[in-house]
Amino acid sequence: MDSVETIPEEEQPLRYHGGNLNAARQLFPSAPEPWIDLSTGINPVPYPVGTVSPSAWSRLPEAAELAGLEAAAHAAYGATPSTSIVVAPGTQALIQWLPRIFPARRVGVLGFTYQEHETCWRAIGADVTTVTTLSDLAAFDIGLVVSPNNPDGRTFAPDDLAEIAGTLARRDGRLIVDEAFMDVLGRQSSLVPRLPAAGAIVLRSFGKAYGLAGLRLGFAAASSADCALLRSAIGPWAVSGPAIEIGRRALKDDAWLAETVGRLYDEVARLDELLQSAGFQVIGGTPLFRLAQQNNVAPWFEHLCRAGILTRPFQAKSDWLRFGIPHLPWEWVRLEAALHSCANFP
Amino acid sequence: MDSVETIPEEEQPLRYHGGNLNAARQLFPSAPEPWIDLSTGINPVPYPVGTVSPSAWSRLPEAAELAGLEAAAHAAYGATPSTSIVVAPGTQALIQWLPRIFPARRVGVLGFTYQEHETCWRAIGADVTTVTTLSDLAAFDIGLVVSPNNPDGRTFAPDDLAEIAGTLARRDGRLIVDEAFMDVLGRQSSLVPRLPAAGAIVLRSFGKAYGLAGLRLGFAAASSADCALLRSAIGPWAVSGPAIEIGRRALKDDAWLAETVGRLYDEVARLDELLQSAGFQVIGGTPLFRLAQQNNVAPWFEHLCRAGILTRPFQAKSDWLRFGIPHLPWEWVRLEAALHSCANFP
Repeated sequence: MDSVETIPEEEQPLRYHGGNLNAARQLFPSAPEPWIDLSTGINPVPYPVGTVSPSAWSRLPEAAELAGLEAAAHAAYGATPSTSIVVAPGTQALIQWLPRIFPARRVGVLGFTYQEHETCWRAIGADVTTVTTLSDLAAFDIGLVVSPNNPDGRTFAPDDLAEIAGTLARRDGRLIVDEAFMDVLGRQSSLVPRLPAAGAIVLRSFGKAYGLAGLRLGFAAASSADCALLRSAIGPWAVSGPAIEIGRRALKDDAWLAETVGRLYDEVARLDELLQSAGFQVIGGTPLFRLAQQNNVAPWFEHLCRAGILTRPFQAKSDWLRFGIPHLPWEWVRLEAALHSCANFP
Repeated sequence: MDSVETIPEEEQPLRYHGGNLNAARQLFPSAPEPWIDLSTGINPVPYPVGTVSPSAWSRLPEAAELAGLEAAAHAAYGATPSTSIVVAPGTQALIQWLPRIFPARRVGVLGFTYQEHETCWRAIGADVTTVTTLSDLAAFDIGLVVSPNNPDGRTFAPDDLAEIAGTLARRDGRLIVDEAFMDVLGRQSSLVPRLPAAGAIVLRSFGKAYGLAGLRLGFAAASSADCALLRSAIGPWAVSGPAIEIGRRALKDDAWLAETVGRLYDEVARLDELLQSAGFQVIGGTPLFRLAQQNNVAPWFEHLCRAGILTRPFQAKSDWLRFGIPHLPWEWVRLEAALHSCANFP
């Protein structure tokens, strides 16, 4: 649970993982509606859901449909023929299972990063150590990297990841690479094309780049043996019929993704400029979120909440504020006004 | 994996859990389309999906929305105030987790029943014994009952279930009651209103009675302590936004359920008559499926497949065939014709 000094304890749910708009509404009842949720790293322009076939809702998903989705993910992520793909109802479901499938005492997490990995390994009693450089992970049974990293956007060369993964795999350990935000960066940055040789387990989120976080769809790419363990733990019919249908369609739609990435880069440039003009330094991010720095962001977070704009602060980093990407014209107008009125505080 | 003597091995996927219509299509390519899938116990008239709000697809489900769904399930299942509810992407997800959360060596399953429970307990190395009477379960660490039972529809008095559950709970064991098909029978048959005093864990499936198996939605009802363990294992954002929205609406719609149950009873009476006129004895079932008996059902299963009608045989029971409930007029016509042409075989 994150917290920021000036925010009373009862407001803390706001900052858990971002996205808790209902809590924000209750805490800032005078804020203008609709709220602008910039607390997540989810693409604000979702892939068109279109018409979902009646049988996707009514029938248990069939093996052939699931295989079709796996094949689409396999192609979209640039996996080699001998790499397997496991489908899950969101990568969080995989994060929950990994510590049960690959139990390890010594877990190294390359931080500062997304909290859920550490939480799940601690839950099985693992000793979790946060390290600051990739090579430090070689000393552990399980190494964890988020690439690009959340919230600072740091990326890691696939060569370097493969080297660490190989070191761990030779000791029957594993490097787990969470590529939740990789779709918008492209294959050249991903470890998936190096699998299964690299010996790593790579997680891919569907909902972030495709703007469909509510669909609950995520994947693991790994060796057939590791995927068989994951698949058997997760069990049959794990993913909804609509997720299979929409996910399959979206992952084959290269044109949509290319257009989306282009638009996001334009909007990121605009957001960076806006943040800088308000006195922030943009110290990192991806095309799906920006990490902005300023001495003590707590008053900024509160001020933006009062203006109906939810951002993402971090308990351990009092000078960091993460911004999702606005999209609609009125969102830009309100964000600009709110940032400038706060920047002009006495 | 079920198998029937006269069906070659490569046709076996057909009979796994029912519902594998693609496999049936490939094995019987001359069968008339569309196939009639009577291999599951899913209501053929789904709850109307209606319009799903855009944010249910695009946003991570919020705590308040999940709490709303939990409250709707709590009320629909007649739970007492001190009973907790856990939401999962289908009860199968709970079945996968239970052996990890309540590890036990000696597991008793009241059989003959749904196979997935035994499979998941064996996967963690438990000794699984099938017993034939409820009281036999008192000798185990974990007892498993499906009520109403699949496939024979056998039900168990809540008093009797509560007594066994109490015996197991006092030894820190658990009775797990899978009420996957309970919605169509009603509260008086359910163990949920006896919780948490009874000390059991009750599983409820949403997709079967509401005809939305592709939605992936299921629940566990139990003490707060047991639910906290399950919730922490399953993790946050386990269930899709559409499942939360549709599930909440459906579970509050008592009128729809009452009308559905009335219609199902009418259709069941019609199906029983049809089966009997074809020479079957109806030996059990629920309003969502019927268990029919006849000396060696294998030729019947094959004949029905050739007529584009998929039913559910059982490897261990060569004289049992389970039928889902037809609904559309042409489904009745084709089923009647197929049954009569097979009954009149020389």
